[in-house]
Amino acid sequence: MDLAWLEHPARRPDPAARAAALARQALLTKPAGALGELERLAVTLAALQGRTCPTLRQVHIAVFAADHGVAAAGVSAYPQAVTGEMVRNFAAGGAAISVLARELAASLEVVQLGTVNDPGPLPGVRRDWIAPATANFLDAPAMDDTQLARAFAGGRHSVTAAAQAGAELFVGGEMGIGNTTAATALACALLGDDPQALTGAGTGLDAAGMRRKAEIIARALQRHRDHLADPRQALRRLGGFEIAALAGAYIAAAQQGVAVLVDGFIASVAALAAVRLNPACRDWLLFAHRSAETGHARVLAALQAQPLLDLGLRLGEGSGAGVAVPLLRLACALHAGMATFAEAGVSDKAGC
Amino acid sequence: MDLAWLEHPARRPDPAARAAALARQALLTKPAGALGELERLAVTLAALQGRTCPTLRQVHIAVFAADHGVAAAGVSAYPQAVTGEMVRNFAAGGAAISVLARELAASLEVVQLGTVNDPGPLPGVRRDWIAPATANFLDAPAMDDTQLARAFAGGRHSVTAAAQAGAELFVGGEMGIGNTTAATALACALLGDDPQALTGAGTGLDAAGMRRKAEIIARALQRHRDHLADPRQALRRLGGFEIAALAGAYIAAAQQGVAVLVDGFIASVAALAAVRLNPACRDWLLFAHRSAETGHARVLAALQAQPLLDLGLRLGEGSGAGVAVPLLRLACALHAGMATFAEAGVSDKAGC
Repeated sequence: MDLAWLEHPARRPDPAARAAALARQALLTKPAGALGELERLAVTLAALQGRTCPTLRQVHIAVFAADHGVAAAGVSAYPQAVTGEMVRNFAAGGAAISVLARELAASLEVVQLGTVNDPGPLPGVRRDWIAPATANFLDAPAMDDTQLARAFAGGRHSVTAAAQAGAELFVGGEMGIGNTTAATALACALLGDDPQALTGAGTGLDAAGMRRKAEIIARALQRHRDHLADPRQALRRLGGFEIAALAGAYIAAAQQGVAVLVDGFIASVAALAAVRLNPACRDWLLFAHRSAETGHARVLAALQAQPLLDLGLRLGEGSGAGVAVPLLRLACALHAGMATFAEAGVSDKAGC
Repeated sequence: MDLAWLEHPARRPDPAARAAALARQALLTKPAGALGELERLAVTLAALQGRTCPTLRQVHIAVFAADHGVAAAGVSAYPQAVTGEMVRNFAAGGAAISVLARELAASLEVVQLGTVNDPGPLPGVRRDWIAPATANFLDAPAMDDTQLARAFAGGRHSVTAAAQAGAELFVGGEMGIGNTTAATALACALLGDDPQALTGAGTGLDAAGMRRKAEIIARALQRHRDHLADPRQALRRLGGFEIAALAGAYIAAAQQGVAVLVDGFIASVAALAAVRLNPACRDWLLFAHRSAETGHARVLAALQAQPLLDLGLRLGEGSGAGVAVPLLRLACALHAGMATFAEAGVSDKAGC
């Protein structure tokens, strides 16, 4: 399958809209800068949406679910069957991201890329089946070339459909038992970091479990060491279907001009891979929160990302991004809805 | 006027509701603790509302506006007329808190306690007139006993009316040119801190302006030094009508069993005064955000408060609390709306 699209240019944020939004901010009835990060968000979204006053009425959330061969090595506190069980839970409305999507009036798309425990076709689930799981990266590359291409395309498909439906913000989530192991291995490969430094508890490993997980990641990095300089190969050998789908989605969103709100650790590793594959897509990525997962701080630093929230979240599914959506919406509402000093008849700061 | 009510007991959070909420959290389809601070919020609100699943449908925002005699000393970047002008802007819907109240579907009450520039009666503004401004605390106590009592009562009035109307959360905001000076002086008195350490830029002073502001606060502390050990006297001599109103509102909310979301620096100084006057009211206070104003970190530490947001906000009006309201609502929605492992047929962690 063709992967040339990954390198097609990202859209450029609109400098005129940015300038107009900045000029508007300076007129609103508040001391300059008093709304802090909310002002920067409004101006950034203005540039991404190409209009002075951005809106986020239509938010699309896509959750990509997939299983990981490395789960066989005992890297998770939960059994692998949970991935398929959670697909059913997403669709039935009982998962955290299901609740958040309802509360936010966001469209929620569950994309099943492959699970060992297959719940079969379900209403509200898009089957984009690649395989029951990736290969165990201790034995072989996690994906072959075709699987990698299909995973990238699965992410792009979600973005294209969302953009055609008018989505003003794309949120990607993930579910996959073992996927903090895959994401940590990929982050180590992309950053040249040591597994000891980046490995965290995932869904709840104890200290011995984390040591074992770090050792497994170190073995994988050793096994694939001759192929990790190329980010596409690193992703193919160490990643997962859902991680590649997120990376493909982020690149496609940048190419199609849809702003992205990146969730936590795994989504941020996918974002790092996306930026390595197509650096200009970075402009389209906003970061929702600082996860409690150990490796996230390092990945955020590499992306020069300063997320909005730091609430100790570590659930995945896109949940941290969902929680941050109201902040973006309020930033837009304040930007568009506040009166100017002139409109309100309020005296501006002396000498400004 | 009677101030004995300030020391009437606060309601006690409900330990049975807290325990039931904690038990429910343990059953939801997520790794234990994976929703971090949102889990603690839901459990705390359960205890405050006395039910396993708290809700925040009705949020009441009261903004207290008042002028400060110390503004004559040139402590603000804005002219004093702005306080009255902003009262009009609040009521007309153009201020940040007006926009937030609309977006949150919260009730917004503007309480005019006294402004030098008096816009007169306005629709949507409750006149609870004490005086055009406090006295300049460089010359005299900011308030006399009657004024202090009326300011406390003004805050209590808002809470009582909100509670009777079914409010599930109370947000207090403030507006008053010069009120970071009053709040900083009061914080120094309550904490025994040096003005140099706590004085910040307010609405936008430069370094010279901040030095001058700190010197003015130091002179005030010196002038009133024999009377500052009693928090009520400290508030009367150094505070403002809106700061006393917020303190009275927080104490009344704790007495009437209404959860409070505290805004930024000035609101937190009022909260500190409230806790010194009636320590048990602390249980009812949630903290929205860490302000960019210099002294806030120290005040939060004294209150052992860990706010939800850190977005560089420094506007006041209750705006930071407004921005944090969706986090509380989503915490409640997740707590009530997520499926349990049993309901969803999802395998729990091995051995738990």
